[in-house]
Amino acid sequence: MSIEQEIPTQSDIERLPLDIERIHELSEVLLPVFEQIEQGQQIEDETLNAKLVELINILQELHPADVADVLESLPPKERALVWHLVSPEEDGEVLLEVSDAVRETLIESMNKDELLAAVDDLDADELVELAGDLPHQVVYEALQTRDPDERAKIQAAMSYEDDQVGAIMDFEFISIRADVACEVVLRYLRRFDNLPDHTDKIFVVDQYDVLQGVLPIRKLLVADPEELVADVMATDVVRFRPEENVEEAAQAFERYDLITAPVINADKKLIGRITIDEMVDVIREETEADMLNMAGLQEEEDLFAPVWDSVKNRWMWLAINLCTAFIASRVIGAFEGSIEKIVALAALMPIVAGIGGNSGNQTITMIVRAMAMGQLSGLQAGRLLKKEIGVALVNGLVWGTVMGVVSWMLYGNIGIGLVMVAAMTLNLLLAATVGVLIPVLMDKAGRDPALGSSVLITAVTDSGGFLIFLGLATLFLI
Amino acid sequence: MSIEQEIPTQSDIERLPLDIERIHELSEVLLPVFEQIEQGQQIEDETLNAKLVELINILQELHPADVADVLESLPPKERALVWHLVSPEEDGEVLLEVSDAVRETLIESMNKDELLAAVDDLDADELVELAGDLPHQVVYEALQTRDPDERAKIQAAMSYEDDQVGAIMDFEFISIRADVACEVVLRYLRRFDNLPDHTDKIFVVDQYDVLQGVLPIRKLLVADPEELVADVMATDVVRFRPEENVEEAAQAFERYDLITAPVINADKKLIGRITIDEMVDVIREETEADMLNMAGLQEEEDLFAPVWDSVKNRWMWLAINLCTAFIASRVIGAFEGSIEKIVALAALMPIVAGIGGNSGNQTITMIVRAMAMGQLSGLQAGRLLKKEIGVALVNGLVWGTVMGVVSWMLYGNIGIGLVMVAAMTLNLLLAATVGVLIPVLMDKAGRDPALGSSVLITAVTDSGGFLIFLGLATLFLI
Repeated sequence: MSIEQEIPTQSDIERLPLDIERIHELSEVLLPVFEQIEQGQQIEDETLNAKLVELINILQELHPADVADVLESLPPKERALVWHLVSPEEDGEVLLEVSDAVRETLIESMNKDELLAAVDDLDADELVELAGDLPHQVVYEALQTRDPDERAKIQAAMSYEDDQVGAIMDFEFISIRADVACEVVLRYLRRFDNLPDHTDKIFVVDQYDVLQGVLPIRKLLVADPEELVADVMATDVVRFRPEENVEEAAQAFERYDLITAPVINADKKLIGRITIDEMVDVIREETEADMLNMAGLQEEEDLFAPVWDSVKNRWMWLAINLCTAFIASRVIGAFEGSIEKIVALAALMPIVAGIGGNSGNQTITMIVRAMAMGQLSGLQAGRLLKKEIGVALVNGLVWGTVMGVVSWMLYGNIGIGLVMVAAMTLNLLLAATVGVLIPVLMDKAGRDPALGSSVLITAVTDSGGFLIFLGLATLFLI
Repeated sequence: MSIEQEIPTQSDIERLPLDIERIHELSEVLLPVFEQIEQGQQIEDETLNAKLVELINILQELHPADVADVLESLPPKERALVWHLVSPEEDGEVLLEVSDAVRETLIESMNKDELLAAVDDLDADELVELAGDLPHQVVYEALQTRDPDERAKIQAAMSYEDDQVGAIMDFEFISIRADVACEVVLRYLRRFDNLPDHTDKIFVVDQYDVLQGVLPIRKLLVADPEELVADVMATDVVRFRPEENVEEAAQAFERYDLITAPVINADKKLIGRITIDEMVDVIREETEADMLNMAGLQEEEDLFAPVWDSVKNRWMWLAINLCTAFIASRVIGAFEGSIEKIVALAALMPIVAGIGGNSGNQTITMIVRAMAMGQLSGLQAGRLLKKEIGVALVNGLVWGTVMGVVSWMLYGNIGIGLVMVAAMTLNLLLAATVGVLIPVLMDKAGRDPALGSSVLITAVTDSGGFLIFLGLATLFLI
């Protein structure tokens, strides 16, 4: 399918925002007659009919990626109406482009025949991408329509995890032998109707399909026609194994500005390729997952998901947060006697906890990011810790003194001011220490340092802040 | 320069982690003799000399992107040593690859002649990219060495803002006329030593350089040699204006799987092109900037920056956080009388504030992300608000009841339990409302919705949570 995909036109892009707005309007107006449309009945009302025709026309002009965007931005009923009007041949491409959450809702709304029709035109790698979300029966029947060779490839690719190169590789590549002249290659290429998307290099293999090298198109075009492929090709090229991690592959693509790269199996045989467009998706999803995880969301949400789905996506972190808040509350509870004597402590303690949380989050975000970029090895943890403690000391003394003076003036008690300075400085030091240690230890334990790091650090700085502040106050003021 | 850049080799990638570790070791061992190395003196010690040679050899083998990574992961002194040993011809490429913060430190360590030598080999677009960080005098002298045509291009590109397409376009493209045969184009290409990186299409222009269309290499390779370019080329193609926003351009690249695209001026004349590798950087930086901003960091930090630089990067958000914490503290201060009577309130109030902050951050992160992806127009704000209020109601009643029962049992006071349920539910409703409104209003005001949204929502849910909880307690329990 991707082979025949058209180049988007500039006029598409310029019209897009207007089209989307118009689709929103039209789908809302047509909602009352959705049932008739669904049943294929003629709509009596002339105006509505004209609007229906207009909507269908706009949808036909849109690129599948744009249809996907439109569907994501529509509330459930309007989304169902528009999805019903998308032409069946485009269904598969659109399903590939929408977010996971929206894809689920679309697939749920389709019956088996509609799904089979939608995936019928897809490339092998595209079918692999959708397979996880499709009912088993649909995948099974879709596989039966493919030829045995393709079926084997699809089944092999389906056996990889989502985060492995094997799951996102495609099978649309051109391979040649090393012992032919460049001219022969050019003649060979001319026999194709179309070259696969993103073809920036041709793979060179021997008779057993073992990868010998790659012939960049850029080199082929400037090479002497008589020259042999063997003399023009690059032999020691970046290649991937299907078990490798996609995020690492994406970093290699980014680092070395690759467009495509070969995938080989344990016998060094060429089995597929990966392309920059998949890698761009990986990069986007990776940074976004970090962002969502730090905020306590398990996965990307369909904006218009039913309330219940959103509750499920968010309940876990809320529950963890409640537990840590409860612990902090018990820390305060232990000092109720002190608060009864100096009630000002109750008003001041959230300041100490708050600045610790903010500062700890700054530290941990910076380190999580550096780790994701591979800039940080365990070796430098000690040095980084020293630096972060330096930053915390400066901030603690500066801002602690500011708040200390303010508290002193508010409550006319210099003791409270001094406890404030000491508590803020100590809590910032705690935040710096834990902010460095949490991601470093998570990483050593082989876990994702982004996951829940923000909740963890806030838990430590809250309970720690209350403990330090109320503890110091009890020691020195009471 | 990029034209001659070599394809990375697989052995590079496999050896990379080992090399980096070895560089760390070697640079540490060589630090004591850095002064001698800098002054070009022979090192007496045989072992040290051997290590120096080894270090130089490893560095010579590395791709500039990998050298950049090594420099980012080294502490200041070791970094200076390694940077001194990188061969001058590679300096420019490495400067292009390192992060902004590290680039500054490297440039500061170089004198004018070293900088001029480093930028001498760079392409026009690469010089533009570095220009902002170089001393004016260096930029001025570097421009004098370029021919007038190139100088004009560079000066034009330098006049664009960092986030405009004009600032990242390059000038390495091949253009042809529409009235020649494909065969002629192939012969013309063969006259080049090398084609520009990422050449996936050739631009078709008329005698005034006005863009007529593009000829994808994929089509050129399968076309009949006799056919005219005019009959093979695509005419209505995605093109960009230099004033356009790079993030929007990156979205178009991602959406339509582009590799390169032409940039045209107001007269539709072809003035440059943009490539996927720049767009990948834009995508990475965009999501990362959102993440850093939400955590209260102004910009990416050099991990090993001096303490003072880090303090400067973080002080603003800490100050804002202190102000909002102070407001929350005054809210509590207003209820000191109630806390004196029921000291349990002091222990329970952070739970109400905390869950509001966590839940509000979940809402706001989801909406900021949806806006960044263009999935959310102002029209649906009302509908989203309704949904988020539904989620907040479910969470508030469920978790509120849990904590209400716990508080009741802890303090043996059913009144406290009931106030807890009510306060948690109300604060979650507040979090949902403000979580939707902040980004929607920021967006309407033309500001970046990610900027500081996390701090803002936490400020509202903290002060709001204390006010609701202590207010209800004062009304019903005292």
